[in-house]
Amino acid sequence: MSPLEPERIVRLDESIPAVVLLDQRRLPDDEVDVECASAAEVADAIRTMVVRGAPAIGVAAGYGLALAALRGDDVDEAERVLAASRPTAVNLAWALAELRDDPTPERARALHAGEVERCRVMAAHAAELFEPGTRALTHCNAGGLATGGYGSAVGALRAAWERGLLERVLVDETRPLLQGARLTAWELEAAGIPHAVIADSAAGSLMAAGEVDVVVTGADRIAANGDTANKIGTYSLAVLAAHHGIPLVVVAPTSTVDPGTPTGAGIPIEERDPAEVTARFPARNPAFDVTPAALIAAIVTERGIHRAPYAESLAA
Amino acid sequence: MSPLEPERIVRLDESIPAVVLLDQRRLPDDEVDVECASAAEVADAIRTMVVRGAPAIGVAAGYGLALAALRGDDVDEAERVLAASRPTAVNLAWALAELRDDPTPERARALHAGEVERCRVMAAHAAELFEPGTRALTHCNAGGLATGGYGSAVGALRAAWERGLLERVLVDETRPLLQGARLTAWELEAAGIPHAVIADSAAGSLMAAGEVDVVVTGADRIAANGDTANKIGTYSLAVLAAHHGIPLVVVAPTSTVDPGTPTGAGIPIEERDPAEVTARFPARNPAFDVTPAALIAAIVTERGIHRAPYAESLAA
Repeated sequence: MSPLEPERIVRLDESIPAVVLLDQRRLPDDEVDVECASAAEVADAIRTMVVRGAPAIGVAAGYGLALAALRGDDVDEAERVLAASRPTAVNLAWALAELRDDPTPERARALHAGEVERCRVMAAHAAELFEPGTRALTHCNAGGLATGGYGSAVGALRAAWERGLLERVLVDETRPLLQGARLTAWELEAAGIPHAVIADSAAGSLMAAGEVDVVVTGADRIAANGDTANKIGTYSLAVLAAHHGIPLVVVAPTSTVDPGTPTGAGIPIEERDPAEVTARFPARNPAFDVTPAALIAAIVTERGIHRAPYAESLAA
Repeated sequence: MSPLEPERIVRLDESIPAVVLLDQRRLPDDEVDVECASAAEVADAIRTMVVRGAPAIGVAAGYGLALAALRGDDVDEAERVLAASRPTAVNLAWALAELRDDPTPERARALHAGEVERCRVMAAHAAELFEPGTRALTHCNAGGLATGGYGSAVGALRAAWERGLLERVLVDETRPLLQGARLTAWELEAAGIPHAVIADSAAGSLMAAGEVDVVVTGADRIAANGDTANKIGTYSLAVLAAHHGIPLVVVAPTSTVDPGTPTGAGIPIEERDPAEVTARFPARNPAFDVTPAALIAAIVTERGIHRAPYAESLAA
C-alpha cells in the first residue's frame, strides 16, 4: 500500500476490531500503525497527535464512533469523549454529527471517501490560481496525512504540479512539532515535487528576496466572515505576505467553515504543553492562531474559489 | 566562577597556551570548555559556533591573534584565517584591525573588557526606552554569551529589570540552532528575569494579542543607513512589529556599524549547512537577514540612542 493511500493513513479494521492510524508523530523515520480498540483510545490518539489535521481528525472520530457502535459501547458517551479531544477544529463536531444517526462502518467509510474526493475537487479549483513557474510556500501539513488522503493545501500543490504550473515549494518546518519538515516534505518527496524545508523565521526574508509567489495553507476552522484559524505561524505568514504583496490562499473543505462563529475572536485557541517547545525553561505553546479575513486573498473549498467579502461568498 | 562572568565565556590562558571557550553548542545541558591551541583552531571554533555572537566572535578572534603572536606563528596568516571564519559580522574585522599592530594578551584583554563595558553603557541608554511594566520580546541570543559578557539586547533587558521597568520577556526559541531557547533563557534564568520561550512563529500572534510592548534584538552588522543584519527571523519580527505598532529596538556596539557598507544590500548573508534545519529532506538555511532601517525604532550603541535618519545619527 502506498504511504499516501487513504487507507494507509486511517482505516477501520472490523476484524480486530480497531481504528488503525499511521502514527504521524514518528514519520518520516518510522511507518508504524497505532491500533485504537475503543473510541476513548481514538480520542487519546487525536489528543496526542498520532493523527492530526482537521479533516483527518474528523475521519478518525467518525471511525471511532462506528467502532463504539460495533462494540456495543455507549455511542453518546463515545461521541462526548471524541468531541472533547481537540478544541480548535470544527470538522470533528461535523463528522460526529454526520455519523450520529447511523454510526456504521459503511457511513464512516463514505465520510472518509468524501473528504478525499473533496480534496481533489478543491485542488482542481485552487490550481486555477497558479501561473506557470509559481514558487509556493506552505506551512504545517495540509496534506493527505491531514485530510485522510490527497490533501487540501498540498493537494492544491499536487494539482498545480501535475498541470505544469508549479516550480517548487518552500516548506516551513513548523515548530514545535515540525509537521512541515517531517510530513509535508515527506509527501512532496513521494509526489516528486521539488521542495526545500526552511526555518519558519526565514519565510519573511525569502519573501523579501522575491522567492515566493503564493502562500498556500489549510485551515482548522473558518469563521463566517472568513477569519481563519490554522497552525500557529499562519498569522505571521499572512502579515508578511501582505507586506510583500503576495497572495495567501487558504484551501479547506466547507466542513471547516463554522457559520455559528461570526469572527475569529470566537474560535478557541488550544494552548498545548510547553514541553513541546522546551523541556527546561518556562515556555508558552499556543498551537493555532487566527488570520483576519482581510489578509486572505482567496479561500478555496470544494465549492470553488471564494473571495472577499467572505461573509457572503462563504454563505453562498 | 559564575557562568555569566566574562572570563567564563572566552579567555586566553597563557599557561597552556590556548584560547578557552565555553562551548555554546552544548549549553544549557553541559558547561564544557573548548581549548583552542592555535588561531586556526579558534577560527574553527567560530565557524562551528562554539562561540557565536558578533562581539564575542571579535573578542575570540582578538585572543586568537594574540595566541598566534605568543606561539611565534605567522600573525598575518592567522589574521587571514580568523577573518574568513564567519562572513556576516563586522566586529571580527574590527577586532583583528585593533590587535594587528600590537597582538599582545594585554591588548586582547583590554578589547574584551571594552566590549563588556560598552554593553553596560548601551544597556543604561536602552533602559531609557522602557516604561514600567514593559513586556519585551527578543530573538536569538544577544546576551553575555554573544558579547563576551553582560550582553547587548539581553544587557538592555537586565538594566531595565534592575530599574523595575521590565515585567517579563518572551524569548523566540530561534531555529535552527535554538540560541533563544538554549542561551537567552539560560541567561535570563541566571539573572532572575521572568521569561517564557515561544516558537518563533508564535511571535506575530502574541503581538496581535497585545502581549508585546517592545522587540529588542542585537545586530551582527549595521550598514551606514541603519539597515541591520541579524539572526534570520529578525526581519520577520520587524515587519510584524511595524504591523502592530510595536517599536523594534536594536542594541549593538558601534563596532557593529560598518560605514563602508552604504545599505543592507551590501551585507553578505551566510547560508549555513541545510542539515542544521533537517538532515533528511532538501533544505535552505540562510543564517541572517537584513532589516530595513525604516522598520527600526531606535539603534542603541554605547554612544546613546540613535534615531532615523540613521545615516546622520550613526555617522555623528
